[in-house]
Amino acid sequence: MQTSNRGIAMVGFDADDTLWRSQDYFDDAQAQFERIISHYVDLDDVGKRLYGYESRNIAFFGYGVKGMALSMVEAAVDITDARIKASDIKRIVAIAKQLLRHPVEVLDDVREAVTAIAAKYPVVLITKGDLFHQEAKVRESGLSDLFRRIEVVSEKDPTTYARLFEEFGVDPSRFLMVGNSLRSDIQPVLELGGWGVYVPYHLTWMHEASAQLTQGRERMREIDGIGNLSQAISDLDALASM
Amino acid sequence: MQTSNRGIAMVGFDADDTLWRSQDYFDDAQAQFERIISHYVDLDDVGKRLYGYESRNIAFFGYGVKGMALSMVEAAVDITDARIKASDIKRIVAIAKQLLRHPVEVLDDVREAVTAIAAKYPVVLITKGDLFHQEAKVRESGLSDLFRRIEVVSEKDPTTYARLFEEFGVDPSRFLMVGNSLRSDIQPVLELGGWGVYVPYHLTWMHEASAQLTQGRERMREIDGIGNLSQAISDLDALASM
Repeated sequence: MQTSNRGIAMVGFDADDTLWRSQDYFDDAQAQFERIISHYVDLDDVGKRLYGYESRNIAFFGYGVKGMALSMVEAAVDITDARIKASDIKRIVAIAKQLLRHPVEVLDDVREAVTAIAAKYPVVLITKGDLFHQEAKVRESGLSDLFRRIEVVSEKDPTTYARLFEEFGVDPSRFLMVGNSLRSDIQPVLELGGWGVYVPYHLTWMHEASAQLTQGRERMREIDGIGNLSQAISDLDALASM
Repeated sequence: MQTSNRGIAMVGFDADDTLWRSQDYFDDAQAQFERIISHYVDLDDVGKRLYGYESRNIAFFGYGVKGMALSMVEAAVDITDARIKASDIKRIVAIAKQLLRHPVEVLDDVREAVTAIAAKYPVVLITKGDLFHQEAKVRESGLSDLFRRIEVVSEKDPTTYARLFEEFGVDPSRFLMVGNSLRSDIQPVLELGGWGVYVPYHLTWMHEASAQLTQGRERMREIDGIGNLSQAISDLDALASM
């Protein structure tokens, strides 16, 4: 374990699409939704309309499958001018249940990569969404023993990270976050003076796609696979120790 | 602050129906649901049927308003034999949104009672349900500054409390929980060797109503109002210090 007074002292990992597959299932759920709606209306922007409901409803529901499902129900009624059959509404609820129970597929090389990092630094997991669902996925992933703390948060913004750093007893300038979302995993941590390794996933939810790295770009590395994580963290740790 | 090596070292508070009004709003939501359903079927057990969906769906959705709303949608389709109109389904989603935005009404004498306890012990808040909704209520209550830690958990069972005690660095035998649910607030804490003050609320969700206090009954006090909390904690602290 790291014991010096400089350099990286703790590494945080995002979960969905960083440790395990997630967006694929959401995209599939959306495709099912669009097929249901296509029996009522002939539109090519159903996905975009649904996203409108989802993003407006974040203020009510926060993130996660349950809020998405309620947005789907609301959108389905509106988009079909209330012509949608009750049986099809029930299929939408079933999509949500399916999504909440999909198997957790840990991504390639993740276990090895996290294990290697956990041998050098205390590691924590920081994920946003429905508490109940995220906890179930952590349990099912078989990875939970690698993490010193597992935090499910409602939003990944500077305020949340600052609170966590205080709880963890780590200085922001010694914290490094690994994740697939510039907006949620990288930008807020850089803003607080921390470090980031960005591991893009082949799919990104529209909501996470936008981010402006206004500061701290030099404290971030982008890698094209989790296999390169160890090297990237070593490089940043060397900078942080200077 | 308590500094001796014996006696109560930390006090936990439940939130819904302990610090602020909650079940009233759920009961009202259920009454609105029953009125919608009554346009389709003439049944006097709609509430009981809905509870059947809710409790079966806890395994998918966990606790909270969003899961309740999805259960309502599912139940509405089934109970009406899929005759329910899409516009009425949308009203059910609106009930959920309303419930997620109701004003937080702190119960009488709560602020004074918690302030008095917080002057003597470190206090923490432990609540279950939707992370996003619970955090919003804590913020809106104006009570958050009184609590050293605010923990939203997915289940209030001995495993969860044991994990929290470890995170808080408190021995279970020195932790006292205050709450309105024997099942969620009192029983698991007594089981771990801790202490409890039970403050019944005038309404109880069916799910929380059943509890068997198999052990530790002597480490619990029941009070009829939060105004008596200070005395009850003093009494139990004296026992814990023996």
